[in-house]
Amino acid sequence: MSDHSIITQLSADLGGIDIISDPARAARFARDFSWFSPVLKELLADKAADLVARPADEAELARVLAACYRHRVPVTARGRGTGNYGQCTPMQGGVVLDLARLDQVRWVRGGVARAQAGALLSDIDLAARPLGWELRMLPSTYRMCSAAGFYCGGFGGVGSINYGTIGDPGNVTGVRVVTLEAEPRFLELRDAEARDLYHAYGVNGIITEIEFALAPLYDWQELMLAFPGFMEAMRFAQAVGSSGGIAKKSLTVMEAPLPELCGIGASTSAGKADACIPADQAGERGSGGQAGARIPAGQAAALCIVAASSREALTGIAAAHGGSVVLAQDHGAVYNTRDSLIERSWNHTTLHTLARDKTVTYLESIYPAGDALAKVEELWRHFGDEVLMHIEYMQLNGQLTCVGIPIVRYTTAARLDQIAAEHRARGVHINNPHTYVLEDGGKLASESRTLAMKRRLDPAGLLNPGKTRSEVEAARGA
Amino acid sequence: MSDHSIITQLSADLGGIDIISDPARAARFARDFSWFSPVLKELLADKAADLVARPADEAELARVLAACYRHRVPVTARGRGTGNYGQCTPMQGGVVLDLARLDQVRWVRGGVARAQAGALLSDIDLAARPLGWELRMLPSTYRMCSAAGFYCGGFGGVGSINYGTIGDPGNVTGVRVVTLEAEPRFLELRDAEARDLYHAYGVNGIITEIEFALAPLYDWQELMLAFPGFMEAMRFAQAVGSSGGIAKKSLTVMEAPLPELCGIGASTSAGKADACIPADQAGERGSGGQAGARIPAGQAAALCIVAASSREALTGIAAAHGGSVVLAQDHGAVYNTRDSLIERSWNHTTLHTLARDKTVTYLESIYPAGDALAKVEELWRHFGDEVLMHIEYMQLNGQLTCVGIPIVRYTTAARLDQIAAEHRARGVHINNPHTYVLEDGGKLASESRTLAMKRRLDPAGLLNPGKTRSEVEAARGA
Repeated sequence: MSDHSIITQLSADLGGIDIISDPARAARFARDFSWFSPVLKELLADKAADLVARPADEAELARVLAACYRHRVPVTARGRGTGNYGQCTPMQGGVVLDLARLDQVRWVRGGVARAQAGALLSDIDLAARPLGWELRMLPSTYRMCSAAGFYCGGFGGVGSINYGTIGDPGNVTGVRVVTLEAEPRFLELRDAEARDLYHAYGVNGIITEIEFALAPLYDWQELMLAFPGFMEAMRFAQAVGSSGGIAKKSLTVMEAPLPELCGIGASTSAGKADACIPADQAGERGSGGQAGARIPAGQAAALCIVAASSREALTGIAAAHGGSVVLAQDHGAVYNTRDSLIERSWNHTTLHTLARDKTVTYLESIYPAGDALAKVEELWRHFGDEVLMHIEYMQLNGQLTCVGIPIVRYTTAARLDQIAAEHRARGVHINNPHTYVLEDGGKLASESRTLAMKRRLDPAGLLNPGKTRSEVEAARGA
Repeated sequence: MSDHSIITQLSADLGGIDIISDPARAARFARDFSWFSPVLKELLADKAADLVARPADEAELARVLAACYRHRVPVTARGRGTGNYGQCTPMQGGVVLDLARLDQVRWVRGGVARAQAGALLSDIDLAARPLGWELRMLPSTYRMCSAAGFYCGGFGGVGSINYGTIGDPGNVTGVRVVTLEAEPRFLELRDAEARDLYHAYGVNGIITEIEFALAPLYDWQELMLAFPGFMEAMRFAQAVGSSGGIAKKSLTVMEAPLPELCGIGASTSAGKADACIPADQAGERGSGGQAGARIPAGQAAALCIVAASSREALTGIAAAHGGSVVLAQDHGAVYNTRDSLIERSWNHTTLHTLARDKTVTYLESIYPAGDALAKVEELWRHFGDEVLMHIEYMQLNGQLTCVGIPIVRYTTAARLDQIAAEHRARGVHINNPHTYVLEDGGKLASESRTLAMKRRLDPAGLLNPGKTRSEVEAARGA
């Protein structure tokens, strides 16, 4: 925590700006979804902000930064708090800079959208869709996630099967940043320079506006399919993913009992299943009842978002693998509601499972392209019930591959590390979601470029301090 | 050739239908672009049709087929004659069935277009584009190629980097076929059954209508870039292809002197370069003259069609590999004209090169995904000037890879076979374009399904006879 008198002076300097100093209220702004990790939960438990600043515009933002620089108070940027690694949690107190009020969508034109840092992803999408465009990818938190927060703390999501990660060249075309200096400067960074801020947790610059390249809007359909076993569902997904002719936005597979745990499976005990998927959308099996929109107990699930024109081909492949469609709904009709299958994919699968069972946690794995199916089967057999398989398909470096967000039955941090090591030993990459240290997460494009940008935009090293490896090591040495 | 009296009777039965019996005129309809291959040119030199039938509608088509069945006269379907393997050349004479007059685009809706067999691909595209859709892939012949001809004799093209081959599940959703029987029946075949007619040269059924799943229309830009060397251009293309964030429709690389040979390079001797690319589109380098729109002598070329929003990222990657943009033009503005870069890609590169140098031919290769760049370099070094590298990027089985359409300095058929064998020995697949035998070309999805469909739709075995391996072997035995 910063010295009390300095914070008092800082508060005085910020007259007219919305600030929060009440500790209970401020605490909320220093928290994200890092509680998914029992490891981070413990590590970050005592971290708090001295003050939350909520600028309404760039002028107020510049005033906040100038004042923080003057008093040498750390500044930790926050989007909407949907991160999983404590990105908005200040390691050394100071100011949490809430960017949620910079929430305007500036424009959508020529297949590009520009928005303020705190704009909701869903608001950008809702502005783009009437023009025939949509965001290229959405984290499962898109209804509450900010534009710059996704870029600085996210990775990919629904749509990554076409466009890779949000950090891949071409997905974000530019950002407007502000420096943390005596007189903060606003700069436009394009292309490669903009990418230096990707997944950097705001340690190397504060984004005020961000430009996303868009995808043309398809008439997407959401399909939920049941399969007798996990590998049948995987082979189906692999076949669908491998066919260039099936236009898709998302492809998710989960083994039993994950469908039940995350609220889309038939409940083995009465009254436990979510009512999130309306009964009148059951369709396909003709049951017309809610039971028709459930994955039967013990079965694996595949969740697909595909173009309407691809549905026939997908259904044919499903039948060949013993699968059947239990729910079909128009994506546009459920977009931005709890009924979309997006809510059961990516890390929302973890969220819903944690809502039912506090004893689990998760990992993030990347399977080797070309060998993904065999490796998924190998690890599925290896871990048994301790690691429940949840697979998302995505494009990485031009290759279709599987990323895993498996649910892990948590015992100890040591065992969690061992499970990660057993993945690595079998050629499966792990991005560690149980660390707040920037370089240890595994998603930075270039550590040296990231840190060079920090020296340029944050010469005093006040942005989100304590998150880089050198700072962590310095703190350990101290 | 069929018995003269039978042909006379057949002609009489076809009263009121447009038929061509004059040998010189009929000969035109038995020819395609198989002259690209010196091997096929020789093998097919003496093949001719006895009669060309040009039905105006399905009723006339059924009359032609019923009459041919009655007289047991072979029927070889022809689209627009843009094939490369003698698909429309009758091995045993009989009737060439010209489907060019069945040229209507039936409808475009819900991301799907349906057209008659003989409709020009460009006409389908021109109908789809105002609705925000376009064909998913185009052969370089799209301005003269028929819808069903592309499906029955083609493979992929511009757009295959996103959607794979035209035979991949989901690209063609259905076909309407007519049987060759006493009373021809019209049948709708969907999905997997429709795929049994893919690349089957019309030996197993006559398509009368075909349904293509479409792609959403992007605001594509065509960019032509010059690189100091072939591998610089390849590494650029690999980086662009591997970035999910760069939305692309086409990615072509050719080594020097192919740019000059196919008409986009600066000429080393005056007056040889095409004037196909208008001087006023030179742009970028600011020369404003035609020279600015040429690949400098000795340099490699990359031809790219990318989304406008991806141009900045592409240019950044080009600069990192020593490349520079020598031409930039709006794809929509040059679509369906000779000015589009499509005219210098896929097999049009071969066409333009052959127009200048009759001593060359070509091959079709597929590089192993994941190892493509290294393999391309290995073969480029191995063959030197005998095989000039022309690479197209495409998606195959969910993986980005390179297909080669190299220009080969032709000496003998034996040496051509040896060059193919040297590819295979290095792990590079060859689809043999120097055979008219269906199974030997390498593109059939399933030989047994293809032949089973033939028994169903062509019980008397009259469709395009002499093209299947069993028929070829029977003929050799006779």
